[in-house]
Amino acid sequence: MKALVYLGPHNKALQDRPKPTLAAPTDAIVRVTRTTICGTDLHILKGDVPTCAPGRILGHEGVGIVDAVGAAVTAFKVGDAVLISCVSACGKCVNCRRQMYSHCTTGGWILGNSIDGTQAEYVRIPHADMSLYPIPPGADEEALVMVSDILPTAMECGVLNGRVQPGSSVAIVGCGPIGLAALLTAKFYSPAEIIAIDLDDGRLAVAKRFGATSTVNSSDGKANEAVMKLTAQRGVDTAIEAVGVPATFELCQQIVAAGGTIANIGVHGVKVDLHLEQLWDRNITITTRLVDTVSTPMLLKTLHAHQLDPKPLITHRFKLDQILDAYETFAHAAETHALKVLIET
Amino acid sequence: MKALVYLGPHNKALQDRPKPTLAAPTDAIVRVTRTTICGTDLHILKGDVPTCAPGRILGHEGVGIVDAVGAAVTAFKVGDAVLISCVSACGKCVNCRRQMYSHCTTGGWILGNSIDGTQAEYVRIPHADMSLYPIPPGADEEALVMVSDILPTAMECGVLNGRVQPGSSVAIVGCGPIGLAALLTAKFYSPAEIIAIDLDDGRLAVAKRFGATSTVNSSDGKANEAVMKLTAQRGVDTAIEAVGVPATFELCQQIVAAGGTIANIGVHGVKVDLHLEQLWDRNITITTRLVDTVSTPMLLKTLHAHQLDPKPLITHRFKLDQILDAYETFAHAAETHALKVLIET
Amino acid sequence: MKALVYLGPHNKALQDRPKPTLAAPTDAIVRVTRTTICGTDLHILKGDVPTCAPGRILGHEGVGIVDAVGAAVTAFKVGDAVLISCVSACGKCVNCRRQMYSHCTTGGWILGNSIDGTQAEYVRIPHADMSLYPIPPGADEEALVMVSDILPTAMECGVLNGRVQPGSSVAIVGCGPIGLAALLTAKFYSPAEIIAIDLDDGRLAVAKRFGATSTVNSSDGKANEAVMKLTAQRGVDTAIEAVGVPATFELCQQIVAAGGTIANIGVHGVKVDLHLEQLWDRNITITTRLVDTVSTPMLLKTLHAHQLDPKPLITHRFKLDQILDAYETFAHAAETHALKVLIET
Amino acid sequence: MKALVYLGPHNKALQDRPKPTLAAPTDAIVRVTRTTICGTDLHILKGDVPTCAPGRILGHEGVGIVDAVGAAVTAFKVGDAVLISCVSACGKCVNCRRQMYSHCTTGGWILGNSIDGTQAEYVRIPHADMSLYPIPPGADEEALVMVSDILPTAMECGVLNGRVQPGSSVAIVGCGPIGLAALLTAKFYSPAEIIAIDLDDGRLAVAKRFGATSTVNSSDGKANEAVMKLTAQRGVDTAIEAVGVPATFELCQQIVAAGGTIANIGVHGVKVDLHLEQLWDRNITITTRLVDTVSTPMLLKTLHAHQLDPKPLITHRFKLDQILDAYETFAHAAETHALKVLIET
Repeated sequence: MKALVYLGPHNKALQDRPKPTLAAPTDAIVRVTRTTICGTDLHILKGDVPTCAPGRILGHEGVGIVDAVGAAVTAFKVGDAVLISCVSACGKCVNCRRQMYSHCTTGGWILGNSIDGTQAEYVRIPHADMSLYPIPPGADEEALVMVSDILPTAMECGVLNGRVQPGSSVAIVGCGPIGLAALLTAKFYSPAEIIAIDLDDGRLAVAKRFGATSTVNSSDGKANEAVMKLTAQRGVDTAIEAVGVPATFELCQQIVAAGGTIANIGVHGVKVDLHLEQLWDRNITITTRLVDTVSTPMLLKTLHAHQLDPKPLITHRFKLDQILDAYETFAHAAETHALKVLIET
Repeated sequence: MKALVYLGPHNKALQDRPKPTLAAPTDAIVRVTRTTICGTDLHILKGDVPTCAPGRILGHEGVGIVDAVGAAVTAFKVGDAVLISCVSACGKCVNCRRQMYSHCTTGGWILGNSIDGTQAEYVRIPHADMSLYPIPPGADEEALVMVSDILPTAMECGVLNGRVQPGSSVAIVGCGPIGLAALLTAKFYSPAEIIAIDLDDGRLAVAKRFGATSTVNSSDGKANEAVMKLTAQRGVDTAIEAVGVPATFELCQQIVAAGGTIANIGVHGVKVDLHLEQLWDRNITITTRLVDTVSTPMLLKTLHAHQLDPKPLITHRFKLDQILDAYETFAHAAETHALKVLIET
Repeated sequence: MKALVYLGPHNKALQDRPKPTLAAPTDAIVRVTRTTICGTDLHILKGDVPTCAPGRILGHEGVGIVDAVGAAVTAFKVGDAVLISCVSACGKCVNCRRQMYSHCTTGGWILGNSIDGTQAEYVRIPHADMSLYPIPPGADEEALVMVSDILPTAMECGVLNGRVQPGSSVAIVGCGPIGLAALLTAKFYSPAEIIAIDLDDGRLAVAKRFGATSTVNSSDGKANEAVMKLTAQRGVDTAIEAVGVPATFELCQQIVAAGGTIANIGVHGVKVDLHLEQLWDRNITITTRLVDTVSTPMLLKTLHAHQLDPKPLITHRFKLDQILDAYETFAHAAETHALKVLIET
Repeated sequence: MKALVYLGPHNKALQDRPKPTLAAPTDAIVRVTRTTICGTDLHILKGDVPTCAPGRILGHEGVGIVDAVGAAVTAFKVGDAVLISCVSACGKCVNCRRQMYSHCTTGGWILGNSIDGTQAEYVRIPHADMSLYPIPPGADEEALVMVSDILPTAMECGVLNGRVQPGSSVAIVGCGPIGLAALLTAKFYSPAEIIAIDLDDGRLAVAKRFGATSTVNSSDGKANEAVMKLTAQRGVDTAIEAVGVPATFELCQQIVAAGGTIANIGVHGVKVDLHLEQLWDRNITITTRLVDTVSTPMLLKTLHAHQLDPKPLITHRFKLDQILDAYETFAHAAETHALKVLIET
């Protein structure tokens, strides 16, 4: 089968690879019909993710059709249309029992990381009963690909951890795909203000279309002042960090109101400064999280109920044959204006 | 009246000052019968607290007798025995309505900071109805002085923010008075493990007597390893930072388990490193807080019900005349083994 | 001044009464510009509310202009445009400190009940700083009248107590004004399903316009079956009781899913059956509440941010002179299709 | 093997039955070493539990040694010492994913109910990985039998649902084994008052030894007045119903404070009166729950840390041969003063 393989830093190829086979009674094999590329895949390609060794098939998002199931799989059968979760979870270890599936002792984010992933014609899914979701007939499968990772990540790490509430104020620092997904899911809770912050006016225009109540271009280094002015010098109740660099985390510290929350989504490569000399008495909360996909069932319901439309996140479509072009398009988003690129197999 | 006055960095004196008078209809004047010294008073004396100007009477803890009340005070009358809260709160501003009394727009921690405090024969208490508590007949007034600040601070910033639970594991980083108060109040929730960490074996011995299940002397720079060994390499559910320097905050980051909380109590003078490159996917929560004294009514009930005995926190007793000696004793705790020093007027 | 006065069961009149005066330093006198009639006023007129004695001026909702303030009022001054809360709260008693303002020891729901109310040209407001809210310039005052009582009641007793969540299912049992207000505020949390239930097709049509995803006419006694069918035999996560009679509470018990919540808003005159023989092992929660108005600041923000439009709740408008007609219209809602009737003074 | 078999209402026998065998790859067979009798077993024997058909081996509590495991069991192997949970849970269905294991679509309370149970030499445990817990070497196995059902039931249905907090007041209505277990686990949260209520002075004396701060004999029908007097007419924050008859639920309604919680543990056979005409405006919460055993890991930790001593709950010991005597002893607790009877196989 065809598969996009990581070959070491800055090196990847579309290769022919053997079709995966069942390795445990709880496994399923899924024929992937649609997948996508995540910012994390780009991190791997930079060599930033040591758990991902050369030779690995990338990808942890997608939908498909069940091709085979192990003897202990009870929720799915061959031919079922399924959503693939980016997190594999056994459901029974110490961390799964507290719904911290991201830290499942035999799962977590392993697809396209420590085991082969979804940017291929077939993929092996461990702990299939907990890691796949049935797709109802007539569902929009493109929209569902957004539920593999980006929407639950935005919802859990940003919106739930950030305790967005009716009437509250939210700043979204970084309006790439994940920031925009945070914006979409923040709206579930009817905040009064959603301030979108980015360096790129194009992305801010998208954020405005997605429902931001104000936008701030931070390229002048004065986003702090702009946000304080917008909030009558109070700052925001929730600052969602959706970039992963020191400058954006710094901005979050400057704009969070007393009693507020900084909810980190960004994947950080280096340490940041935490200004406890200013924040120790400000009653703030800072959270980090790898998505647990606990919100997946709820997101599926909101999607089905038309409370959520993630389709505008998809800007480009490719065939699996063209996946190298898809990577190019996604990696150069400033020029291509790409958000999520959809890949059909 | 006699009062301990801050005269600028490293400079204080016991002076004669006029007795305070009512300034607003919601004020009370309290004749202070017992007070104490807080670590924050030492910070002021180092010049670290810019809101506290020279000439200020220090002190924000104590008990006493109501000497006068304004026309709008309804809960207290002259002659009532009262506990003085370290936080003054109007009860009606935007922050008080969300029970963040520490950020009351006309109160907060103002006593012995931006207005004159309790290390004097009399003190003016703004927003008296919300900032004083009745002392029931027969109560132990020495124990009650510990409810002005150190116990609610430990409880709210450490134990409640740290989400200590039955069966959970807690590390208390720093076993000075505030760390020991966190230990005492953590026990309300029956954690399975309380690991006390300090540089001083004497303080660790006290922690053990107070109920620590293990102690770690961190002077060898290997406290991290010791805690990981004690927790089967899992780390602790709650790390309570009770010092306020970069090294202790660093240790908290090293020992917090996935899904755990770092609850900061320490007053920090400089920024710290936050290792988001290691913590971004660890599902941790970091909290800061200036005590809101929302736990004061509950602490009074537990005290009354003999669920809490703060008396062992009191190691030395002085008269107001000897307050300079009391400061010496408290400031040189390594030699004097002082925890809290009680001052009778 | 003119005032609508309760004269005993089934008896009321528009009378001339003296203008109220300040009775405590925390009082304000407000010139009422708009008020409305509540279902509770009808309860009083039936003689169902023993705390309300004949001679009482009714009404606990409205907006107006501050006419006088006591010496201890700090948040308002003469001439300020204000929203009147249906609950008066001192902010400092044992219940106010836990934000249960409805049970304030010197307040709670007293307006138009144990003290004179708002269906008059002027009203005295105790604890004015906590019980009035500033109206920003340009705000829609008619919409604001809905924030005095009906919206916070629906939000707190129904939506917050009912723990409405994104993707969840909600049944609203009774689509009178309070049920419809629950529907409007439930939408803050983006539930997947809102099932409106009533005996009257006209009200169900209104519910549909307000955003119900399905409607069930319960006059055939089979609403239970209809709801179970709509929810694939699961029942609803939240059943909001918005009537106050045994039959509707019975229906809530039949349709609540395992793990779900029955949130009671209705004012009940008689006891109901609780089927613990069926519910003891169903992991359900039942809540009751007199509105605490803790959600008022949040509702004002959502209103200002155009996240909430309560204007469709207002169906009729009257002058104070016509208040007896207004009562007739409101009391005969089946014929008049009245929801809330607005009264201008 | 020997087994205690339900033969229809008021009829049971110790019979010879075939040893159970693995029926699914997720099953385990456990050789039972210790079991006990639950109040629910008596309910079954009265014919009150229609899901339990004649011919069923009773019992849902116990410890033992793993005798066989299915191919998909990964957490246990033959020879492991294990605690048997009263609730079997797949860990992956819609209810297990929200940690409502009691309503697992292929599990829940099925042992000794819809499948054969633990009052036998061997038992088949479905979903073994989620439904067994490892016993550490040296643990007290008698104490552990109390963690199968009675302690998590008391903790979850009574203490957690009842939101017991430091400084709060708790009434325990009914001091049989489950009420006493609620008393033991309520102490995890350091309430200021625990008022034990029962008809039997002997049980009240036990409650006092277990830590009740006051006791009330309710046989004079004036328990209500006694509790109100003990709480300065406020009532209790938490009323735990641990009997399951209308009279005790009625008492809970009379003694719960405004803002408080009635946490039902009792298994009810008939409906009760709910006095919404008195409670609609009292801000109370009523909860029901079948134990989810989510607290089991935490209880094991508290037991290991000596924060909990359930041994005093065990009053009598029998061999499996004598199980009919054990039932007699347990069923006539008023005369035998039995709490839990331990049965060794």
